[in-house]
Amino acid sequence: MKKRVVLALGGNALQKNGETTAEAQKVVAAEVGEVVVSLADKYEIVIAHGNGPQVGSILIHEEAAGTEKAPAMPLETAVAMSQGQIGYWLTQAINNAFLKRGKNPKVATVVSQVVVDKKDSAFMDPTKPIGQFYTQKEAKKLAKEKGWVVKEDAGRGWRRVVASPRPVDIVEKKSILELVKDGVIVIAAGGGGIPVYRTRALKRLKGVDAVIDKDFAAEKLAELVKADIFVSVTAVPNVYINFGLPSQEALTNVTADEILKLKKYGYFKAGSMLPKVEAAATFAKKGGTGIITDIESLKAALAGKAGTIVQKG
Amino acid sequence: MKKRVVLALGGNALQKNGETTAEAQKVVAAEVGEVVVSLADKYEIVIAHGNGPQVGSILIHEEAAGTEKAPAMPLETAVAMSQGQIGYWLTQAINNAFLKRGKNPKVATVVSQVVVDKKDSAFMDPTKPIGQFYTQKEAKKLAKEKGWVVKEDAGRGWRRVVASPRPVDIVEKKSILELVKDGVIVIAAGGGGIPVYRTRALKRLKGVDAVIDKDFAAEKLAELVKADIFVSVTAVPNVYINFGLPSQEALTNVTADEILKLKKYGYFKAGSMLPKVEAAATFAKKGGTGIITDIESLKAALAGKAGTIVQKG
Repeated sequence: MKKRVVLALGGNALQKNGETTAEAQKVVAAEVGEVVVSLADKYEIVIAHGNGPQVGSILIHEEAAGTEKAPAMPLETAVAMSQGQIGYWLTQAINNAFLKRGKNPKVATVVSQVVVDKKDSAFMDPTKPIGQFYTQKEAKKLAKEKGWVVKEDAGRGWRRVVASPRPVDIVEKKSILELVKDGVIVIAAGGGGIPVYRTRALKRLKGVDAVIDKDFAAEKLAELVKADIFVSVTAVPNVYINFGLPSQEALTNVTADEILKLKKYGYFKAGSMLPKVEAAATFAKKGGTGIITDIESLKAALAGKAGTIVQKG
Repeated sequence: MKKRVVLALGGNALQKNGETTAEAQKVVAAEVGEVVVSLADKYEIVIAHGNGPQVGSILIHEEAAGTEKAPAMPLETAVAMSQGQIGYWLTQAINNAFLKRGKNPKVATVVSQVVVDKKDSAFMDPTKPIGQFYTQKEAKKLAKEKGWVVKEDAGRGWRRVVASPRPVDIVEKKSILELVKDGVIVIAAGGGGIPVYRTRALKRLKGVDAVIDKDFAAEKLAELVKADIFVSVTAVPNVYINFGLPSQEALTNVTADEILKLKKYGYFKAGSMLPKVEAAATFAKKGGTGIITDIESLKAALAGKAGTIVQKG
């Protein structure tokens, strides 16, 4: 029996050396595809990817060039667009990596809606800046016109901020699971998923402009597809304490309780290692193996020989 | 045993009365969702949709607001983006139509690459105008810089033109078929599919800037998923001869040979009824039932009581 693995890939990871063209991102996707396919004999694989820089570009283009005839798409639809975009690049890369090995490619991207709770406290205090920069005047005008929340962003100008609520469910979970069981590598919950909520009375799905953390969404996906292992793939091989200081210490094998204690001490930065640590610990607490590592160490980490490995306890 | 149906929906169909906002298109998608789910008890359904106006808007935004830091995405990636966008709207609409009936929703969008032949003669003579209008000077400059083919468009300005090659294969066909067999309504080959070709020596997949006709792609999809019925859903209940003239005649039951003879006589307009007629006739010639009708007549047409129904012979 193959072990089932959910990989959370950073959206930044596709933009190596700051190269942002489609061609450059496809080149990086090809490298990811090689690694993924090299694992396919031993593991069932589901990939959830980030979309930070990609959906940022889409939104900037949509908003800067939106007209009455061709209006700008809202954030939730822009997330769906980024799923098509990045999903396509990864699917093609994985296809080609299979072909290179003379193997029959089995890979597909499923457009994924991720359910959030409209009562999530994140909606009361939106903090995630998205899209382009505005002057204060423009920002205040847009806030009035479109009901946006806008904030000054570290002296660089004004930006729209949106909520980053927790993922509760993934609408397409059954289809994703069917494909995984059929031996397909599935790309799902891209960019943390298209944020939707269930309306109060009728429980209908409705999109909402928000950004779901991709590590949290990937962890939820790992639970829903009954994965054995959840890996947050990042830029460094391990989680570190006092990173860059003489007292730097790589974490290798830890329990969920241990790493959550370190979190409480404030060792991990929000927007960086913190969500990865929380996601890995959450998955470990439910009985799975949570790993944080980089793509170079992925194979060894899955074999228990590299990375920061978080287990229950 | 349920009959398996592939529906080809026009991308224009989502923009009723010329309304182009995401919200307006979602309202139309909800109407489509109602019809689709009303058929789900009797039929296995796969939906292929067009993306003309949607990918047009995406390209205009990408090109008008592209910068070095956030470069414009190429056409093939823009098609992938439109698959995420429209696939999301349709998926959500169908989900909600299931919920309205108190039923368990089973629907998913699969990002789809459609293989074309790099030697297709369409690449020698690109004819499909896409994206924004330019002055002659701008157009010639872009042609030089980006290797585009540009043409003057009916006195309205200059535009890029791309090839519209025939679909040869659908990369994700097995995943689509697995989902259909599992009872999932699948949205696939959106916008005619992301155009890719196989490189000559190594047979790797590579994207190419082109536009695949959505009726041809949907017909190919119908063949590959072994559908019983292929329906090109359009704005009118039937195919007509001499439409709008006193001699107007609705076609009801015809053979593939009959309708292809009428085609030869020049009765059907390119870019309008012609590809639908060709797709329906192609499918009928392979032994299936090809239907051309509007969404209002869809149910009756599937029961053999409305629409233009094309059979072998």
